Order: sequence, then structure tokens, then C-alpha cells
Amino acid sequence: MTARQKDGRSPGRVVALCGGVGGAKLAFGLDRLLGDNLTVVVNTADDFEHLGLMISPDIDTVLYTLGGLADRERGWGRANETWHFMTSLGELGGETWFNLGDRDLALHVWRTQALRSGQRLTAVVAAAARRFGVRSHIAPMSDDPVRTIVETNEGALPFQRYFVGRRCEPRLRAVRFEGAERARPSAEVIEALQSRSLRAIVVCPSNPYLSVDPIFAVPGLRDLVMEAHAPVVAVSPLIAGAAIKGPTAKIMAELGVATSPAAIAEHYRGLLDGLVVDWADEAQARTLLIAVRATRTLMAEDDDKLKLAGETLAFADELAQPTARSQ
Amino acid sequence: MTARQKDGRSPGRVVALCGGVGGAKLAFGLDRLLGDNLTVVVNTADDFEHLGLMISPDIDTVLYTLGGLADRERGWGRANETWHFMTSLGELGGETWFNLGDRDLALHVWRTQALRSGQRLTAVVAAAARRFGVRSHIAPMSDDPVRTIVETNEGALPFQRYFVGRRCEPRLRAVRFEGAERARPSAEVIEALQSRSLRAIVVCPSNPYLSVDPIFAVPGLRDLVMEAHAPVVAVSPLIAGAAIKGPTAKIMAELGVATSPAAIAEHYRGLLDGLVVDWADEAQARTLLIAVRATRTLMAEDDDKLKLAGETLAFADELAQPTARSQ
Repeated sequence: MTARQKDGRSPGRVVALCGGVGGAKLAFGLDRLLGDNLTVVVNTADDFEHLGLMISPDIDTVLYTLGGLADRERGWGRANETWHFMTSLGELGGETWFNLGDRDLALHVWRTQALRSGQRLTAVVAAAARRFGVRSHIAPMSDDPVRTIVETNEGALPFQRYFVGRRCEPRLRAVRFEGAERARPSAEVIEALQSRSLRAIVVCPSNPYLSVDPIFAVPGLRDLVMEAHAPVVAVSPLIAGAAIKGPTAKIMAELGVATSPAAIAEHYRGLLDGLVVDWADEAQARTLLIAVRATRTLMAEDDDKLKLAGETLAFADELAQPTARSQ
Repeated sequence: MTARQKDGRSPGRVVALCGGVGGAKLAFGLDRLLGDNLTVVVNTADDFEHLGLMISPDIDTVLYTLGGLADRERGWGRANETWHFMTSLGELGGETWFNLGDRDLALHVWRTQALRSGQRLTAVVAAAARRFGVRSHIAPMSDDPVRTIVETNEGALPFQRYFVGRRCEPRLRAVRFEGAERARPSAEVIEALQSRSLRAIVVCPSNPYLSVDPIFAVPGLRDLVMEAHAPVVAVSPLIAGAAIKGPTAKIMAELGVATSPAAIAEHYRGLLDGLVVDWADEAQARTLLIAVRATRTLMAEDDDKLKLAGETLAFADELAQPTARSQ
């Protein structure tokens, strides 16, 4: 619990845990409301080396989204993108299953060079964020390599082979995070989560199994969240049993889990103080044992992102008040 | 000397020694006349690692020129090129002094990946040439790293820093080829030069100091040329004391060498059986002790390249006839 302003709102820092597209939308709203009071801790378990380049898809989605450079139609990569590199690579017989735009490529080449020269991913991402004019702090969950491996009916697949190469078509049986046991949260992530002026921890509406679980798989990170001096609030990635984008609902079905707010609450059991759900799920969510806030969670326009971010923060602030927990 | 057809023309193989733009133009003409009877041995001493990518400027100029992909206006890189990668790299604060087009970049990324996986540069270049539909053989002078260092009034500069970064402005005092003493000609270069059916060796009108000298600096390569069973003919890169493009004349002046056909012949002393000069230099060249052929050496259009290639081959064929040497 932290010192609070007279209006009951804390001026403190917020940590958001985030994966790709859906999570980045809420992170955008939080960034616009909080600026440098926000630290976005991003999944790096779908990072991979491709064509000799170090690619960090979720980090880049957050960088581009918060930097105002993201393509809104496509859902990944940069706006006004061109694809001449890919076309020419195809002419050479190179691998073209993973699309890399001409503008996007600069970030991969630049990052790869920096990492090979010995820089930490955290420092490289921070430098890119500054260059893109991002005010909040974008922090990889770890500087150590963690790699998502998806066990499917077609065998074990590295994440991007499953997600992009096979478009999530194989049936998912289990997910593991190679290297997680040896990974450590970065100093920046630890500092943010241990901050005495922490106002809230927000679990963004990213895929719980593929985007948020790897963050909690980094040893120590789960404890840091549980021991933090702030309420932990998740925004459900589901609306009326479906995911807006991505394979969340398909994966939950394949894992034999109901696509309900209860399943999300259960998945994050022991971590959450509250869950934000869509109006469509309000009735179902009333049965949960944690605090629930219903609102519009569909983020079509920037205004939606700011509103949901504001609602989520207000909800967390209420939970932070001594009286809130008993409501 | 090799078996010859009844018309006196050898059906044999031709080796061209070549650097960048000027040399590649003649190589284009030879390629169109000879197809897979041609091996173009290309300077690799201006190769360098940049942004973590392995760049081979002369190799690429030959690949693009012979593949019909080169930009004719600019003199380097690919036609219909775009520059979004460079723009984005600049936004990130990356190094932008060496231009890399979006299409061109595919070759660098693809090559770097192949070299890092253990492939020889010769094999990588051959694969790219096949992909680009090039019929002749493009062979790096060596698979071992050789790096041109230019000693100038501003100190020692790596070649591309001098050539591109400083646009050849510093005064050149000497040129050295780092690593040359440990380099070996590739098996493909040795095989081509030792061929019993060799018809001619052509030294293309590339910069003698920066593009051709590094080829001869590879131990054994000079001897292979001198011992080859074919006449050696150079095409002068000068026309009336000037170079068409590039710093050849400036460099010769800085080294205290007259920009004359005699200086070219002297530079290649002991290697040449004949020198092709422009009409403008015919009178001066008559005083040389080697055979001289005067023709139009300016290669503005493709037709010029084919004509000069044809003249050069005809000249070599004459020199190959027993009676020719005494003329």
C-alpha cells in the first residue's frame, strides 16, 4: 500500500504484463494515461533467431504500438510497410514463411548487431523505445533466452513454426518454456515490481497460455507479483466465450478448458485481486470469488484503449483501498 | 596453347579478372558472348562486415550486372530499389553511411546466414548466380578473408570507409591487402586458370590498384595467370588520361603515376600479352613493347559491352596464334 493523493488516486507506478496484439492495445491505453509511470513487462518466449536475425515479436508489437508505428489493419508489424526484401529473398530461395517488412527489418538488424556486441536485450529495447518516442518503460521479462515449445498432435513445434508457419492449426496438447528454469527477471523488472510506489499490476488481455504464462515461468517473477505492494488486476482476453483475435479460445478448447471468465480467474488463481470482464460476461463473472469489474473490453479505437485502461486503473485503485477488499 | 577450330577461333574457356562497375560491364559483354565458358574471378578485398551482415560489393555488382538486375543510373545496387530499411535504421540511430537497398538487403542477409552456417563464399555466390539466371561462373578470388586497407594522409582506412564513407577524398599513399598472405585461390579459380581448354585471360577495366591488385595479391594467383595456356589481355580503364567512373585517375596521380596506357602496361608488367586501349590512346600506346589493340572502350550501352568483349576476345585469339607474337 502506498501514499495516496487526497482524491484517493495513487500517483504511483504501474506494471503491465503483456504479450502481443491484444495486450499491446491495453498497454497503449495505459501508456497514454501514465507515461513514464508505466513499465510494460513483455513476453520474450516467442523470440527466435530467423535468417540469422534475433526477432522479438511481442516486444516489437509493443514498441510499434506504443510508438504509434503499428499497422492497425494487419495486427502486427509497421504501418506503410513494403515487402521488397521478402520478394528478393524468395527469388534467392530463402525462407519466406515468416514475413519481415522492409521497415521492420531495420529493428531486427539493429537489435541483432547490438545483442551480438554484448548488449542486454533490455538495454536494446529501451534504446529503441526512446528512439520511437515511447514514454513508458518497455521491459523484456528477462534478458535470458526462454523459448516456447508447443506440444501438438503433430509433435513438438517451436512457437513461431506453430503460430505463424502452421497458423495454430495443429491441436495443442501442452506448452513448455525451454530455458525458463535458468532465466532470471531483469534488474529493471525486479525494481519495478518491488517499487514502494507501485499503484497496480495489470495482466493485459493477452493469451494466458502463450503470452502471460511464460512471464510467470521465469523463476521469481510470480513471487514478485504476489509480494508486490499493489493490487493485481487482469483484463480477460475473452468476450462471450470468444477471443477477439488469436488462438486463445481454440487453445482453451483443445486443453479442455471452458472459455469463460471463471477459467481465466482459475488460470491466474492466487495471483489476482480482481478481474475486468466484458459486459457480455458480467453475469457469469458474478459467481467468482475475486472482485470483478464489468465494462466494454473490445478495443477497436484508441479511445476504447484509453477508457479500458482508465477503468482498469480505477478498479485497481478501489481494490487498493482497505475497504475495497471486503466489498 | 589449345586445340583450335578451323576458323582459328578457340571454343575454349575464358577467365576474366574483375572488380566493380567498369569491370562488370565488360564481364557482361563476355557473359553474353560466352555463357558458361566464362569464369569471372572477382575481387573480394572490399568485402566487409557491416551491421552484422557480410557484404561483398564487387561480387554483388557482378551478380546484379550479369543477372540483368543492376541499376544502370546509380552504378551500384539493384534497379527499382527502395530504401525503407535505411530510413528506419536511421530513425533508430543506426549507421547509414553505407546504403543498402531493401531488395539488395535480401542478398546480404541470405549470404550472411549461409556463411555463418559454414558454407564457402564460392558456393554461396554460385547459388545466387544460378538463382539470378547467370550462365557464366562468378568465382570469388578466394574463400579466405582479404581486406583492403588504404593508407592516406588521414591515416589507415578500411576500404569502404575510404571509398564510400569518405568518397575517396583522402590522398592515397599506399594500399595493402590484409590477410592476403594467408589466403588461397579457391579450387574453382585454380581449375579455371589451369584448364587445358583455356582460350584467354582478360583483365577487365577495373581499378588496377584497388580491384585487380588484390586478386594478384592472393599467393599463387599471379603464377597461375602467368603459367596459363592462354594469352593474357587487359583492357585499359583509362580513356585519354581519365577514368570513366571511379577514382582510378585520382589515385594514379596521388601515387605519382602518369595516367597513360604505358602506366597500365607497366603496372601489369610481366603478366600481359596484350593491352586494349581506347582510340584516344592509340598513338601513345604504339610505343609499348606489348601488343596493342585500339578500339572504342567506352561502354555506354549493352551493345558497346558486347562489341568490346568481342574485340578483346578476337585480339586474344590473334595473340594465341604462333605468328601473332612476332607482329
